[in-house]
Amino acid sequence: MLPLRVGIAGLGTVGGAVLRRLTGDAAAIAARTGRPVQVTGVAARDRAKAAPLLGEANWFDDALDLARSPDIDVFVELIGGHEGVARSAVAAAISAGKSVVTANKALLAHHGLELAAAAEAQGVALAFEAAVAGGIPVIKVLREALSGNTIDRVCGILNGTCNYILTRMEAEGLGFAECLAEAQRLGYAEADPSFDIDGFDTAHKLAILASLAFGSAPDLDAIHVEGIRSITSDDLRAADDLGYRVKLLGVAQRTDHGIETRVHPTMVAKTTALAAVHGVTNAVAVNADAVRELTLVGPGAGGDATASAVLGDIADLARGSTVLPFGRPAALLEHAPRAPMQRHEGGYYVRLSVRDRPGSIAAIATRMAAAEISFESIMQRQPVAAPRGAEPGFVPVILITHATSETTIREALDAVEAGGTIAGKPQLIRIERN
Amino acid sequence: MLPLRVGIAGLGTVGGAVLRRLTGDAAAIAARTGRPVQVTGVAARDRAKAAPLLGEANWFDDALDLARSPDIDVFVELIGGHEGVARSAVAAAISAGKSVVTANKALLAHHGLELAAAAEAQGVALAFEAAVAGGIPVIKVLREALSGNTIDRVCGILNGTCNYILTRMEAEGLGFAECLAEAQRLGYAEADPSFDIDGFDTAHKLAILASLAFGSAPDLDAIHVEGIRSITSDDLRAADDLGYRVKLLGVAQRTDHGIETRVHPTMVAKTTALAAVHGVTNAVAVNADAVRELTLVGPGAGGDATASAVLGDIADLARGSTVLPFGRPAALLEHAPRAPMQRHEGGYYVRLSVRDRPGSIAAIATRMAAAEISFESIMQRQPVAAPRGAEPGFVPVILITHATSETTIREALDAVEAGGTIAGKPQLIRIERN
Repeated sequence: MLPLRVGIAGLGTVGGAVLRRLTGDAAAIAARTGRPVQVTGVAARDRAKAAPLLGEANWFDDALDLARSPDIDVFVELIGGHEGVARSAVAAAISAGKSVVTANKALLAHHGLELAAAAEAQGVALAFEAAVAGGIPVIKVLREALSGNTIDRVCGILNGTCNYILTRMEAEGLGFAECLAEAQRLGYAEADPSFDIDGFDTAHKLAILASLAFGSAPDLDAIHVEGIRSITSDDLRAADDLGYRVKLLGVAQRTDHGIETRVHPTMVAKTTALAAVHGVTNAVAVNADAVRELTLVGPGAGGDATASAVLGDIADLARGSTVLPFGRPAALLEHAPRAPMQRHEGGYYVRLSVRDRPGSIAAIATRMAAAEISFESIMQRQPVAAPRGAEPGFVPVILITHATSETTIREALDAVEAGGTIAGKPQLIRIERN
Repeated sequence: MLPLRVGIAGLGTVGGAVLRRLTGDAAAIAARTGRPVQVTGVAARDRAKAAPLLGEANWFDDALDLARSPDIDVFVELIGGHEGVARSAVAAAISAGKSVVTANKALLAHHGLELAAAAEAQGVALAFEAAVAGGIPVIKVLREALSGNTIDRVCGILNGTCNYILTRMEAEGLGFAECLAEAQRLGYAEADPSFDIDGFDTAHKLAILASLAFGSAPDLDAIHVEGIRSITSDDLRAADDLGYRVKLLGVAQRTDHGIETRVHPTMVAKTTALAAVHGVTNAVAVNADAVRELTLVGPGAGGDATASAVLGDIADLARGSTVLPFGRPAALLEHAPRAPMQRHEGGYYVRLSVRDRPGSIAAIATRMAAAEISFESIMQRQPVAAPRGAEPGFVPVILITHATSETTIREALDAVEAGGTIAGKPQLIRIERN
């Protein structure tokens, strides 16, 4: 059988791992897919660095030339970025009738619909298992394995940097800044960490998951995004006392008001599978009508783990898979109504710095009662040491509310703030049940 | 597009759920697969009971007639049993050029190679996602998503009955018999529970997983099988103290001596994903060279969850999937060398009832030292209450060994037993690292 000819654009950590495995494990991969897979072309920034890895593959100075080369069947895009070379090379490959495999979450989140339509029109594949949650095959599971299910919710720990920082803060009682610095030292966080810790990376991945789960077009702009900068070790300690852990989750769920997509720090009960996911590990939990709950846990990043996802996509192509990019024709992807964050309903963890005098709590409780917010628990305690920046004469009070709406709790807290019984801004962390 | 015509044989919990979903969610499933799926035939035991579910499907008194019917493209076998009607109907369907979807672990474990070869020769599919771990799509993950990996180990909690019993024993400090009776009351265990609690159900599933993981023919006879009858609440309490939980695992791993396949109660560290799997939930952990570790957690049984897996297979067929049953040609499935259990290497938990007099421990330690077995920990303690059947004048002693071989520890314990310092048989539970 004629080999499947692969062109790889980008030889960073992931590209290098893909190339090494496709050449080093060629016989094993052929046995598993029934067809030889051969790297026939490579484009990357640094030819000298790439040279020792090239083998029989041809070198291309320009990824666009590789994308259009008659010597490849599959274009593997591992350049990154949602514009520039990555976008134009993927579009060129599709136009030239090549299937595309990519790890590029930003490209899919921004231009997924348009690229899927182009691939469909050309009768080629656009595969992106590696774009979400690294080595966890969540794309295949949502798109294929759960085809008999109506999916209600997908939520996940999709950013290893954030989960590492939160895990360390919890384990060591350290502050956010210290743990971020540590993550940077260890190579788990970028010098400019904003894309990860402010939730944007998670949002890109969530846009893709939501699209697959609900048969809707990727809609990055509809996602409510908050990062983890505001989380303190006090919050983690209180969470621990109350039976929770704090995780940065991406959540996409059906609600009565439309599809709700949100990224924010979340309290999850310690008994859940997500709470047990530590360090840089990723996890995705899916709730659906037939399977109920399915959780996948694995490495969210790293060259080899991400290469595993890329190779899985290539193997599907070698076997002649014909699954559409988002599991259904691009024309049928709905522009589903999106629920605004103000309509979100759930429980809330609220940490307030309350003036230490009689009547303070009563005043707060009265404001909350007026908004019909009821409490699961109220905890007032002396901090072991006064937290940095704590106002003298104020004590931390933690409220766990029963389900209420985002608008209701925000308005109630605004009223509390205006009432002058608290110092600073209230800390608010949403609670995710089950 | 012409609909994919499905015949369902067996309308028990799973068959009923599959039929209801295929008819009730027909439009949604067609949207997800790109092709309508229509149930055109049904065979089951009780026609009167089936009648209200039939819709436009034809009734067949005999599953074999359904299997051969020209009005079906796919034969869904949900009868069960590795001989009799299930086997002959599946063989007949394949011979008649129909693809087969089955939830029948016993059929696959016993006759998987032969059936896969027949399906391949006919150019039809033989799909069995539902045969292992219910709604967890582990077959698809091993066969497709991890195609770029060399798999080192697959291990899992594959039997909900056993996990339920162990979870209850641990949580409530109850004995095995009580928890089994409770599981039977709740419908989690059969009146004759042997197939589940003695490990045979797990072994059938492990035979299939090992085959997919290692590209070898299913080999049920090669599996070392022990169940959970011997586990006491003392063992669970000691495990808890030592940072472990006890789970019935099926483990298949590459070793220097061949592929080792075994089913037995296992100590797993509380920090692992498998330790956090409670009740009837199943889980599978895969270790592989690229992805490192991937864990899938979900429902292992139940009509709807198992239907989810059956429907996933049907959806693949609707999309025209062409994956071979075991991911590669049947002729290439190796009869891989199997490592005998005596060669197993690992740590062991040993619970002894030791004569309470000076020198007892020294005598045991000396015997173990002679066999070059070293200890991670030794724990002697008074039981809170004397365990039922405890010999007066004896105290429980728990040893955790460093890695040694099955033969070595067995021989050493035989020597200890012969030495007369212990009462009864030593309890021995293998420890699974990482």
